[in-house]
Amino acid sequence: MKKVAIIGLGLIGGSIALGIKKSNSKAKLIGFDVLPKACEAALLRGVVTQVFPDLFSAVKNADVVFLAMPVKQTIVILKRLATFSLKKDVLITDVSSTKQEVLDCAEKLWQRGEVRFIGGHPMAGSHKSGVSFADENLFENAYYILTPSKKLADEQDITELNELLSGLSAKIQIMDVKEHDLIASQVSHLPHVLAAALVNQNNQYSKNHPFTKLLAAGGFRDMTRIASSDVHMWTEILLSNQSAISERIDDFVRHLKNVKQFILDGNETEIANFFENAREVREKMPTHQKGGLPNFYDLFVNVSDSPGAIYGITKILKKEKISLTNIRILETRTESYGILQLSFKNEKDLKKAKKVVDIN
Amino acid sequence: MKKVAIIGLGLIGGSIALGIKKSNSKAKLIGFDVLPKACEAALLRGVVTQVFPDLFSAVKNADVVFLAMPVKQTIVILKRLATFSLKKDVLITDVSSTKQEVLDCAEKLWQRGEVRFIGGHPMAGSHKSGVSFADENLFENAYYILTPSKKLADEQDITELNELLSGLSAKIQIMDVKEHDLIASQVSHLPHVLAAALVNQNNQYSKNHPFTKLLAAGGFRDMTRIASSDVHMWTEILLSNQSAISERIDDFVRHLKNVKQFILDGNETEIANFFENAREVREKMPTHQKGGLPNFYDLFVNVSDSPGAIYGITKILKKEKISLTNIRILETRTESYGILQLSFKNEKDLKKAKKVVDIN
Repeated sequence: MKKVAIIGLGLIGGSIALGIKKSNSKAKLIGFDVLPKACEAALLRGVVTQVFPDLFSAVKNADVVFLAMPVKQTIVILKRLATFSLKKDVLITDVSSTKQEVLDCAEKLWQRGEVRFIGGHPMAGSHKSGVSFADENLFENAYYILTPSKKLADEQDITELNELLSGLSAKIQIMDVKEHDLIASQVSHLPHVLAAALVNQNNQYSKNHPFTKLLAAGGFRDMTRIASSDVHMWTEILLSNQSAISERIDDFVRHLKNVKQFILDGNETEIANFFENAREVREKMPTHQKGGLPNFYDLFVNVSDSPGAIYGITKILKKEKISLTNIRILETRTESYGILQLSFKNEKDLKKAKKVVDIN
Repeated sequence: MKKVAIIGLGLIGGSIALGIKKSNSKAKLIGFDVLPKACEAALLRGVVTQVFPDLFSAVKNADVVFLAMPVKQTIVILKRLATFSLKKDVLITDVSSTKQEVLDCAEKLWQRGEVRFIGGHPMAGSHKSGVSFADENLFENAYYILTPSKKLADEQDITELNELLSGLSAKIQIMDVKEHDLIASQVSHLPHVLAAALVNQNNQYSKNHPFTKLLAAGGFRDMTRIASSDVHMWTEILLSNQSAISERIDDFVRHLKNVKQFILDGNETEIANFFENAREVREKMPTHQKGGLPNFYDLFVNVSDSPGAIYGITKILKKEKISLTNIRILETRTESYGILQLSFKNEKDLKKAKKVVDIN
């Protein structure tokens, strides 16, 4: 019977535990969190069967240890784990958003034969936090990146972790640790910096131009949604991926300077190219793919603007017991027909819905 | 009987015509478009009662002329209008996204006493285009900026245009023309440049880092949605607001360089301040306010994840004949309760819905 210790009983740790239990009915899931409330909630929610009052008791007999917390804490806990006598060849993994620093730390602390280490980054989340909202489907179809330590893990260890995680139905992707942090700096860290910078700039500008805030509308709000993210976590992320992010900032500044020059030159062709390239690439972006944030299997249906149109469709879905993960009207503010976007959990539900909903 | 000529029979021109008709039953609405199909559709949709085969015939007896087209064409048409013998003191207005260039052009072409000119920028739109989708409610509660020419318009002219537009139920806002273009460069033009630049940068990066596109997820997609905008229109906008936009780009680069320095210095306090300021400002942004893109009167309801929950609510709304402008599930991928966001056209519908929907 494999003992799996979840250190950090929040939404992510809890959801991983539930996913593991789904495909490993014999695994014993145990946990630890510095917050007694989180421990209680984890027992109540049934994500672990036992919680311990201290870190050492939780990990001492564990075969696998999940560190489910932000990057800085992960490193603190790794250093504490190194002071304990752990089970020989315990498999340790984590969930933090940047991977190099954690991997370096593990490789400094242990030798092959003492501890096995594979970094992990499950790329899904929810607006909800806390173990009470843990969900075995949270990572369904989301990417779950693994960055194995070359020193502390081999193919067999990766296979073992892969199998343990199979119940999550995530897309497991092995990636070089450096490559992970580089790509994350482009697709996630830089966008967060841009969103926050735009909000701050807008705020400053509004001091001398009071209409600024009044006129910042839909497009602006979409672009700055991620500026509402967790301050503490994002500060840690920037600090643990310094060179990659600053390189991406420099590169972005080069892009901005180019387009600025086109504007000053009145270079219509180059400005049009700039927008045309972006439009083409943007429209090719896959919409059925999951990643850092959830996104879904969609069905698009023409509906009239009458109060009964959506009712009719939800009635059919209810009858067929098909759950929606989301529903929205794409085209609004016209008297004519609109497009209803119905999002489903998986392809099976989407196919079922396609059969019963009349796509007129 | 006032004759109002709509030049450019698209979504915006058509929606303005319908809004004018709503509160000015005696006004005669006539139109012109270079596309015969648009003229036909305008007649069919009932936005104008007469269309003309040429520009001169459409404007020669008009009391008011609306130029409903992008900025470059607006200037072309203004210059053509100046070659015609128009009705004395005709009131000309436009709808383009930048205002200075158009105003300068009008002031060069005419003297006070010949033509009255007030720039206009109705800040709403739809993903749909074409006069067939014209909607008298398109501008309801949206800002409609007026930038009157100091040379070619006085208070009385502004009042006249204001009254003509009253049926649109827009928020009319008089603004200095320079201030309009400055603010638009901050809240609209720069964000479009950033979104397109980010998509292009990401695309370039993916050439050497193939996982880049795979991992660009929810947040990235939100931030780059406006990179799918109309290439031609946006090229014109950048070219007609060159100095303001390049100044905003420079300022944005300064913001980026500051945060880059904090990152390189490992300055945790300043990075946290950077994110904290942005989060605070972002969370204070009004959500019930309209502007460049629609946004709505919202009701938030807790619903269970069962297929029947949304059905139940849409059933009530149907019974009470309350139309939704949008509906979406905010919290997904958990087994627990989610939040359903219901958006309505106006406050009246929202109040009605609040009474009948059980907000548990």
